[in-house]
Amino acid sequence: MATGATPETGAGTADTVSASVVGASGFTGGELLRLLAGHPRFAVAQATSREYANRTVGSVHPNLRHLDVRFVSPDEIEPVDVLFAAMPHGASMERIEEFRDLAGTVVDLSADFRLDDATKYDEWYDGHTAPEHLDDAVYALPERHRDELPGADIVASGGCNATATILGLGPLADADLLDGADVVVDVKVGSSEGGAGGGEAGSHPERSGVVRPYAPTGHRHEAEIEQELGLSVSFTAHAVDMVRGASATAHVFPEDLPTKGDLWTAFRGAYEDEPFVRLVAGGGGVYRYPEPKAVAATNHAEVGFELDERNDRLVVFSAIDNMMKGSAGQAVHAANVALGFEETAGLDFQGLHPVGAP
Amino acid sequence: MATGATPETGAGTADTVSASVVGASGFTGGELLRLLAGHPRFAVAQATSREYANRTVGSVHPNLRHLDVRFVSPDEIEPVDVLFAAMPHGASMERIEEFRDLAGTVVDLSADFRLDDATKYDEWYDGHTAPEHLDDAVYALPERHRDELPGADIVASGGCNATATILGLGPLADADLLDGADVVVDVKVGSSEGGAGGGEAGSHPERSGVVRPYAPTGHRHEAEIEQELGLSVSFTAHAVDMVRGASATAHVFPEDLPTKGDLWTAFRGAYEDEPFVRLVAGGGGVYRYPEPKAVAATNHAEVGFELDERNDRLVVFSAIDNMMKGSAGQAVHAANVALGFEETAGLDFQGLHPVGAP
Amino acid sequence: MATGATPETGAGTADTVSASVVGASGFTGGELLRLLAGHPRFAVAQATSREYANRTVGSVHPNLRHLDVRFVSPDEIEPVDVLFAAMPHGASMERIEEFRDLAGTVVDLSADFRLDDATKYDEWYDGHTAPEHLDDAVYALPERHRDELPGADIVASGGCNATATILGLGPLADADLLDGADVVVDVKVGSSEGGAGGGEAGSHPERSGVVRPYAPTGHRHEAEIEQELGLSVSFTAHAVDMVRGASATAHVFPEDLPTKGDLWTAFRGAYEDEPFVRLVAGGGGVYRYPEPKAVAATNHAEVGFELDERNDRLVVFSAIDNMMKGSAGQAVHAANVALGFEETAGLDFQGLHPVGAP
Amino acid sequence: MATGATPETGAGTADTVSASVVGASGFTGGELLRLLAGHPRFAVAQATSREYANRTVGSVHPNLRHLDVRFVSPDEIEPVDVLFAAMPHGASMERIEEFRDLAGTVVDLSADFRLDDATKYDEWYDGHTAPEHLDDAVYALPERHRDELPGADIVASGGCNATATILGLGPLADADLLDGADVVVDVKVGSSEGGAGGGEAGSHPERSGVVRPYAPTGHRHEAEIEQELGLSVSFTAHAVDMVRGASATAHVFPEDLPTKGDLWTAFRGAYEDEPFVRLVAGGGGVYRYPEPKAVAATNHAEVGFELDERNDRLVVFSAIDNMMKGSAGQAVHAANVALGFEETAGLDFQGLHPVGAP
Repeated sequence: MATGATPETGAGTADTVSASVVGASGFTGGELLRLLAGHPRFAVAQATSREYANRTVGSVHPNLRHLDVRFVSPDEIEPVDVLFAAMPHGASMERIEEFRDLAGTVVDLSADFRLDDATKYDEWYDGHTAPEHLDDAVYALPERHRDELPGADIVASGGCNATATILGLGPLADADLLDGADVVVDVKVGSSEGGAGGGEAGSHPERSGVVRPYAPTGHRHEAEIEQELGLSVSFTAHAVDMVRGASATAHVFPEDLPTKGDLWTAFRGAYEDEPFVRLVAGGGGVYRYPEPKAVAATNHAEVGFELDERNDRLVVFSAIDNMMKGSAGQAVHAANVALGFEETAGLDFQGLHPVGAP
Repeated sequence: MATGATPETGAGTADTVSASVVGASGFTGGELLRLLAGHPRFAVAQATSREYANRTVGSVHPNLRHLDVRFVSPDEIEPVDVLFAAMPHGASMERIEEFRDLAGTVVDLSADFRLDDATKYDEWYDGHTAPEHLDDAVYALPERHRDELPGADIVASGGCNATATILGLGPLADADLLDGADVVVDVKVGSSEGGAGGGEAGSHPERSGVVRPYAPTGHRHEAEIEQELGLSVSFTAHAVDMVRGASATAHVFPEDLPTKGDLWTAFRGAYEDEPFVRLVAGGGGVYRYPEPKAVAATNHAEVGFELDERNDRLVVFSAIDNMMKGSAGQAVHAANVALGFEETAGLDFQGLHPVGAP
Repeated sequence: MATGATPETGAGTADTVSASVVGASGFTGGELLRLLAGHPRFAVAQATSREYANRTVGSVHPNLRHLDVRFVSPDEIEPVDVLFAAMPHGASMERIEEFRDLAGTVVDLSADFRLDDATKYDEWYDGHTAPEHLDDAVYALPERHRDELPGADIVASGGCNATATILGLGPLADADLLDGADVVVDVKVGSSEGGAGGGEAGSHPERSGVVRPYAPTGHRHEAEIEQELGLSVSFTAHAVDMVRGASATAHVFPEDLPTKGDLWTAFRGAYEDEPFVRLVAGGGGVYRYPEPKAVAATNHAEVGFELDERNDRLVVFSAIDNMMKGSAGQAVHAANVALGFEETAGLDFQGLHPVGAP
Repeated sequence: MATGATPETGAGTADTVSASVVGASGFTGGELLRLLAGHPRFAVAQATSREYANRTVGSVHPNLRHLDVRFVSPDEIEPVDVLFAAMPHGASMERIEEFRDLAGTVVDLSADFRLDDATKYDEWYDGHTAPEHLDDAVYALPERHRDELPGADIVASGGCNATATILGLGPLADADLLDGADVVVDVKVGSSEGGAGGGEAGSHPERSGVVRPYAPTGHRHEAEIEQELGLSVSFTAHAVDMVRGASATAHVFPEDLPTKGDLWTAFRGAYEDEPFVRLVAGGGGVYRYPEPKAVAATNHAEVGFELDERNDRLVVFSAIDNMMKGSAGQAVHAANVALGFEETAGLDFQGLHPVGAP
């Protein structure tokens, strides 16, 4: 077993398995490092970065200055129990053979292994170069694939906007409440979604204070949503002024408007035992509906709804931290399930109040 | 003619008419003061505030520290040519008789005189106490009521969210492109909409960085929209982290999807001669669609669209500064038309680049 | 022993002691609840709030929606092992007798027991009503009072701005490097410092985007700083646009400018074994000096410096999360020391990257 | 006379002079275009950009979408009355001969012609390549150089941080109140100072919510300040979360602390007739001291002070919009003076209330 882990990161006990992060200088790679370093069952073995090789991870991720781990070149990656790949779309599938040889479990955070069907990938992204591995991949969301994750070879962590949407609409789709419905999903996301190299549009002067329709139509996450929900949604994404967070508002015009009772039955049935989903609908106080702020820095999702009887419309709200439930947290949660760990291990942070634009 | 205006505000020439602002310590009242003080045809006569009577307007509105104008008690208001009322809903109609006696033209920024039909007001707000004045009121948006404004007794400035929506969808409704369509309007607004006294939910720690569904269904502006467009829309408003600005994204499922050509014809026909509406759809650069930042501090609206043929959906974007085109700027624009002034008088500020969260 | 704690908060094992929070609906009270609920050695007994009695703590603190704890009236408070008081200045001293009767250890987060000398309190605040308890209180910062904390009856958690300043300048004062120096401390703080009820100045429209000199001179924290450092500093605080965080920049004109070596010796000697202080000075990357963002949501402080030989000046930077190291985190850290727990227990969150305006 | 100006920009009347902007795609270039297009005495002739040649200025500066002006290559620049150069430091001096041949007046916004003494430039920047032109340049601030500006060949617009500092301390230096004083200037600036290409440190996720010591010591503006004030200051700059704005807090330890009366005499004497400087010190309300928000989008500066008798310290606050009074607005103001126009021409915008993080 390859470790290389430092004492700080708790390697070498009988209870831990080793984990490496490929692409660890990016935002999601850094978030994975943070979660794995604080995880009772994982020991960080290697963190790769070509650009920052030999520098400490804290030189890029200032919150990890305490960690005594240095980046290694991706060419020097060694065998490990679990390999987390946090690379751009297209890059993971190029190296999937190598990754599977190196590790018993590959957790991929790109879009490369999310779609079951290579032709769908070709349609929404570029041509898939490793379609023969798609059958070995499980979509990571435990709320929908808990039974398929144990022992999975490849775990494909979902897209952040797709995750928010699927968590909001999944129970309704499963309860056949969306059959024949027109569904609009209007998403608001933070700037971390774009990664560290945002270019001019992502520079602070241009990106501050925006309400910017950055994906008015044709967002690639529609493909995942359709696969997971079995229905097509009309998706639009807006960039707003926060760094972390994704909020999905689904406007649904069903053939028959369900009752509040139907909705509570569907949502409670789906989520009452879920450790990371909270139902939030109405009540008093400042925070009456799902909000990204309420789940910032956590792996929680909030889901809620409201009926608009005047317009025969159902509105479903969901909110996540795109870096956590929408990416690295989801990946660790799924890895916990895949490896038989306690589901919430390493993911117990309870969020903040108050908190600004996380 | 009551003036009381100071030399700084240009009173007393043959070319100016006097204007007073009732409720001048609030955000929209302050914006009116700014616009009127810089307007070539208006001379500020009085600015009322019960709480701040005898203090300078600059003590509340720091941008107006240069203005040598002091608040007077609303009990001391004098006859004037044009009276701008910037009061809460319900308060204007209580004093409308008095206001009409004082001034030849009353420009009201509350919701009290926007709806033609008192029963609609009763349905969406509380009971109307001055319904006999509704027939004398014209909805302020010059883009839709230019011909009715000259000589109007009461000018009713529209709601900010309604204004954004009406400007986006109006040309399509007029061209019968929305007949039978399901229409969702998902609005994102800044904190100035709530005024200066936001309470706990509006405090900086709670309001910063939010994506908060503050009006999931049943927003009162639906009534104005329905009146102006002749169709019902499903409206949801989210608070986001900016102070000024409103962005409306309309998701339309028409019976027959129009072509791009149809859309350009409708929008160009409606807006190519409008001084305050810009069509923004696609193109390169950072700002490809309407954004509140691009019109911040101006009286401009931006309108644009995108077709989603995969989902038989039309997406229409519109963006305004809620304090300007959505309130005080619209009021001054309408007053210009009502009084026969040049339409753009006092409203020629060109906005800023870059600008943060205005 | 009073418990009332729910299973979620881990009460009742031999290893835990009970803890109650008085004033739990405020920001610091909520932060204490979060930390105590996730702490391996504390079991939350009671959380008081007169206004929200019988409501869940999650109805006020949305991050704690998972917690099955309800507020009780402060009149119903019961005996407990440790009582954390998160009340306004002046309120704690009124009830200190009662608190000491109820609990073996009182941890107070107000300013009431920070100053050794009642006349100093009278000078900077109002008249002290319980001066006879001052001798039983220990200033909470473990970095300066670790040896006095075990067994302390009253632990007085420091002010956020004072904490940042003391951590930055303490090692230099101890090394006699500040003797006779003129010292300016220019602090920038987030809006959470003002609590939930910020009034008009704290409303989002007025507080967003500010650089506001809210305490140009005479800030009360000067008293604590003088007590802890043995020297007087010239203090100015600015409100800036973040919710959490305090950054102190000390500009020091010493009689003799120390060398870099002197400074490293002083800082390393003071902090190399401290679990919650990081030295950050120079190096490459984006985060070269202490920044509140780098420690947001954690109990860490960052301290760094730069020499300005051209002006015979030493610049010392320090940054904390005002809600954590500057308040609730410091309180829990000190309680850990006072009770003989592991110092870092319950305080191991590693912060976030990226993060917005936390 | 070279015009090329469009009807929208008002060329060709007897009252206007032609003006071109070199480097018009940058932030300050865009701000100049906005001001000149709205100026009663200037007609925009050309706006150069190598990267965006032939595209409309609105494709880069969305607030200028209304303007019918296209960028031209800097190689195609033609003779003009006034040439505004908005280029990086070092680039202006390379082309100064050419610029002076093209235009009777060159207004330069870089640092190249701010310092009288080439050896100072060499010390703080790189080697000066056109020192023979320094004698023909006048530092732009009309508050200090009004008499030298008329007819100046080169007008050198000041640095934003230097401008804020000089306006705050200038009257005190002139009144000999700073003789022998230790002076610290702690500046907080917005992200527009860094221009559009901020790199990773300037990306929204990394730059949001910061309090970042980006120039702890040795900021180049110290040179300008020393030249203009005749004294040396200890300067430190922090990046904070706004786009526009600079706030300077000067902490002064004078040999003898002046009285409030001395200070008012000095400031009123200097500024009571200045059209763009406001004295703001104390009083009630939310905005008691100078704040960037209060002057955002305007050419105004606010200056105020407070005495700290406990520490024998004087604190002076000043605030500007770095893009306006700190750059393009100062340049236009100085050009107005240089050309004999009304000083406030084109600069009469009164700012906004409320406004977010401008």
